[in-house]
Amino acid sequence: MIKIDGKQIIGFSLTAEGTDRFHSYNPALGVPLEYSFVKATVREADLACEKAASAFQVYRKKSGNDKAMFLDAIAQEIFLLGDALIEVCCRETALPKARIEGERGRTINQLRLFARVLREGSWRDARIETAEPGRVPVPKPDIRSLHTGVGPVVVFGASNFPLAFSVAGGDTASALAAGCPVIVKVHSAHPATGELVGKAIQRAAQSTYMPDGVFSMLHGDGSVIGTQLVKNKHMKAVGLTGSFQAGKALFDIAAQREEPIPVYAEMGSSNPVFVLPEAMKLNAARISQGYSASVTLGVGQFCTNPGLLFHQQGDGSSEFISQIKTEFEKTTGGAMLTENIFKSYTTSVARHASRQEVELLAIGARGEGAHYASPALFKTQGDTLYSNPELSEEVFGPASVVVEMKTKNELLEAARNLKGHLTATVHGTEHDLAAYTELLAILEQKAGRIVINAFPTGVEVCHAMVHGGPYPATTDGRSTSVGTAAIYRFTRPVCYQDMPSPWLPPELQNENPLGVWRLINGEWTKDRI
Amino acid sequence: MIKIDGKQIIGFSLTAEGTDRFHSYNPALGVPLEYSFVKATVREADLACEKAASAFQVYRKKSGNDKAMFLDAIAQEIFLLGDALIEVCCRETALPKARIEGERGRTINQLRLFARVLREGSWRDARIETAEPGRVPVPKPDIRSLHTGVGPVVVFGASNFPLAFSVAGGDTASALAAGCPVIVKVHSAHPATGELVGKAIQRAAQSTYMPDGVFSMLHGDGSVIGTQLVKNKHMKAVGLTGSFQAGKALFDIAAQREEPIPVYAEMGSSNPVFVLPEAMKLNAARISQGYSASVTLGVGQFCTNPGLLFHQQGDGSSEFISQIKTEFEKTTGGAMLTENIFKSYTTSVARHASRQEVELLAIGARGEGAHYASPALFKTQGDTLYSNPELSEEVFGPASVVVEMKTKNELLEAARNLKGHLTATVHGTEHDLAAYTELLAILEQKAGRIVINAFPTGVEVCHAMVHGGPYPATTDGRSTSVGTAAIYRFTRPVCYQDMPSPWLPPELQNENPLGVWRLINGEWTKDRI
Repeated sequence: MIKIDGKQIIGFSLTAEGTDRFHSYNPALGVPLEYSFVKATVREADLACEKAASAFQVYRKKSGNDKAMFLDAIAQEIFLLGDALIEVCCRETALPKARIEGERGRTINQLRLFARVLREGSWRDARIETAEPGRVPVPKPDIRSLHTGVGPVVVFGASNFPLAFSVAGGDTASALAAGCPVIVKVHSAHPATGELVGKAIQRAAQSTYMPDGVFSMLHGDGSVIGTQLVKNKHMKAVGLTGSFQAGKALFDIAAQREEPIPVYAEMGSSNPVFVLPEAMKLNAARISQGYSASVTLGVGQFCTNPGLLFHQQGDGSSEFISQIKTEFEKTTGGAMLTENIFKSYTTSVARHASRQEVELLAIGARGEGAHYASPALFKTQGDTLYSNPELSEEVFGPASVVVEMKTKNELLEAARNLKGHLTATVHGTEHDLAAYTELLAILEQKAGRIVINAFPTGVEVCHAMVHGGPYPATTDGRSTSVGTAAIYRFTRPVCYQDMPSPWLPPELQNENPLGVWRLINGEWTKDRI
Repeated sequence: MIKIDGKQIIGFSLTAEGTDRFHSYNPALGVPLEYSFVKATVREADLACEKAASAFQVYRKKSGNDKAMFLDAIAQEIFLLGDALIEVCCRETALPKARIEGERGRTINQLRLFARVLREGSWRDARIETAEPGRVPVPKPDIRSLHTGVGPVVVFGASNFPLAFSVAGGDTASALAAGCPVIVKVHSAHPATGELVGKAIQRAAQSTYMPDGVFSMLHGDGSVIGTQLVKNKHMKAVGLTGSFQAGKALFDIAAQREEPIPVYAEMGSSNPVFVLPEAMKLNAARISQGYSASVTLGVGQFCTNPGLLFHQQGDGSSEFISQIKTEFEKTTGGAMLTENIFKSYTTSVARHASRQEVELLAIGARGEGAHYASPALFKTQGDTLYSNPELSEEVFGPASVVVEMKTKNELLEAARNLKGHLTATVHGTEHDLAAYTELLAILEQKAGRIVINAFPTGVEVCHAMVHGGPYPATTDGRSTSVGTAAIYRFTRPVCYQDMPSPWLPPELQNENPLGVWRLINGEWTKDRI
């Protein structure tokens, strides 16, 4: 029997001061679950922030090894939750067991990857300029810099990744790695999953001697308790994966604080796919299959799900369309994550279908259940897209729009008119790519990741990943929310002038006791000085 | 005879469409100069932005070597301006010749330093993860990322550094290095200096075959033409060194755009200095001399000028105060940069002097001239500082406040109550530092640069410098405005998945043709793949 307390996790305590309660929900059956939760009060939110601020003073000084032990312990505690976590998570999200198991693996691997980064230590970007006391006209001082955590971070869990982008997800892992305490506002679509994971983090913090307050987790409404957290003066940055509305609202609140703070909101996008002429002729079947699978994977509930496909009128275009139609009709939908997501999806699909000059090209099978969505594929022309800009916007779910452009110039113009996206995909032979080099140059200004002859769903957690992109895909296109470079979202550089060695962080001491890479007088080296 | 056109530099053209004119001004004599300028029109601002957007498409693809040639050519053209530049700049700013010559050297060296960074090439932070097609359950794709310019940048020149933080200053150098066209709103305190330097950049752009529009420079009011530039959709980032009012206003405008963009405003601070007990006793003379010199250097018109000195009541404190008084009385003021700056300084000093429990400890000599300021040193107690928070705020000019704290705890509490600053300085013996380790831990959260046993004026241009700090010292504490790391203010990461080699930037090609450092599967190396 899985025990769910339904309380706030505030540092090493569990509290439930509020009176407002909610239940978690089984979206596949459309019925409430037995798990009941108390929404956090303003006082609890403030307490979590104060604890985080105190904890920061201790946690920021923890060594890379100590923080690595903490992250590894979180990974281990999540692993030890075993089937209970999978079961609860499946019930709350209607996502299939294999998907949740995969996501658990990803979450654990992500934590362990950051732990390795911390143990290796070079992430701090240590830079040293040695003194030249004899320099004229003025002596050169000794200057040494590195990155340090900004302070406590608010993380908003995403509905669509109940593990990998939620309580112990990418934002939490990168903030903790950076040396920042974390307060998670758990998504109300999977609060029991959140509690299991949150308690795993709490246990890991205690077993590795981390300070009380290094992690807290609150239940409640984003617009109430989330806003309260973002406004709290102790909080120094915000991470969110969610809707444009939620992300932009938090961005505005954070910008209007007495002390503005950065908001890293990954708000999704429609991830355009461009199919170039030769590839369209030669690889119609492979592209159609891959595209249909990518649109409908996980009932289309991925921020990288491709919502637009551009191709060019010409030889083979009608065959390509009929091939896509055939492939898409083989797809199957499924239960969506929440009732609201389901309603929003069906409304958007109906609105698309009602537009003049937009044709419903294909629908997939629905499956049976409460909030089961059918995949829907639309078809239109470039002109229609211009006069209906909403067609270019993300529909969260298994829907996509195939857009036929008349000419190469029209295709390039469509690319130029794109707003910011997380990804942009091009299918082309070498001959196509040579003929459309300009398209690649445009797209790399529009997206964080350019995908060639593959599909954007599936975001590899690694050192080189950029999961981000220009606004409005995110509120801050200068960073990534996936991969190890995400650590820099929660850091700032600080430098020390003429600081005696004992008071320098070890990464900056002459002896290089941690053996990290350092930029010494302009040369990268692991040498000591 | 120095010819000043008084026009806008818009790419390779000079234009003067407006009717509103102004003169530059000799602040030492308090009289207008013969140089006359036309303020830019909205149409000219928009044209500059459009040209910048077009130029970006060419400039962003320039090799590191090509951009380095451009930056070196700017340095050379500035050098070739010879004495004419020095003469005009001295007349417009009342700064002494040696100071302007020094600043020219700094400006030229800064451009050449960025040129070296571009030639070396590793700044792009190339990261490569090679594919594992056989990985189960899903193959690992090939993922390669690097940093790329964000797009056209608006730069606001600073009044107090007519060369090093102005038309060809740090923001311009780092933005051009990052691959971003620049539009400068030249400060109206040195428009002729700006024109000479702006034309030097224009000539350099032409002689090195850079695209028309890679650089523009406009005259006019920040609140009119500056705002117009920041609102223009083509502009993707803003750099400013100036007042809190100016920086915060631009930050708000940029945050409220349809597409919000980052603003890097370096807004100055009061740069607290802490003198610890043993150092106070042992080094009173050296500290008093250095402090008085730092407060009054360049008539106190540095963003790193120390506006607060904290010390602790105890053995030797009255001797320390009398020593400071003696040293400060030896200082001399001078002409301030503009009439407004002078007025603002005298108002602030009068306001300090009028406060109860604030004592005017010492004044320096004034010198003779129109806008000549006298250095002013005040003395007060910790309690008074708490009840008069304005005392902690920056006074732009040669004024400072010595604050006596009763106890160590009071001193630490004063540090905890600090807002964000560019620098924080500690004078202490090894024994002091050991006893005040907590102070260092507090200060590194409050400032971008911690200075030990020296003074904050003088900002070394190097790889390790952090000239920045938490809000309100800047609007973005995650970066530096001085040193080579400033390049990342104007970049964003982009990654390529399964991109065939010919379409990858050279830094990401297997052969590593540029020989740059790359993070390949988690290991930093210069090897090819």
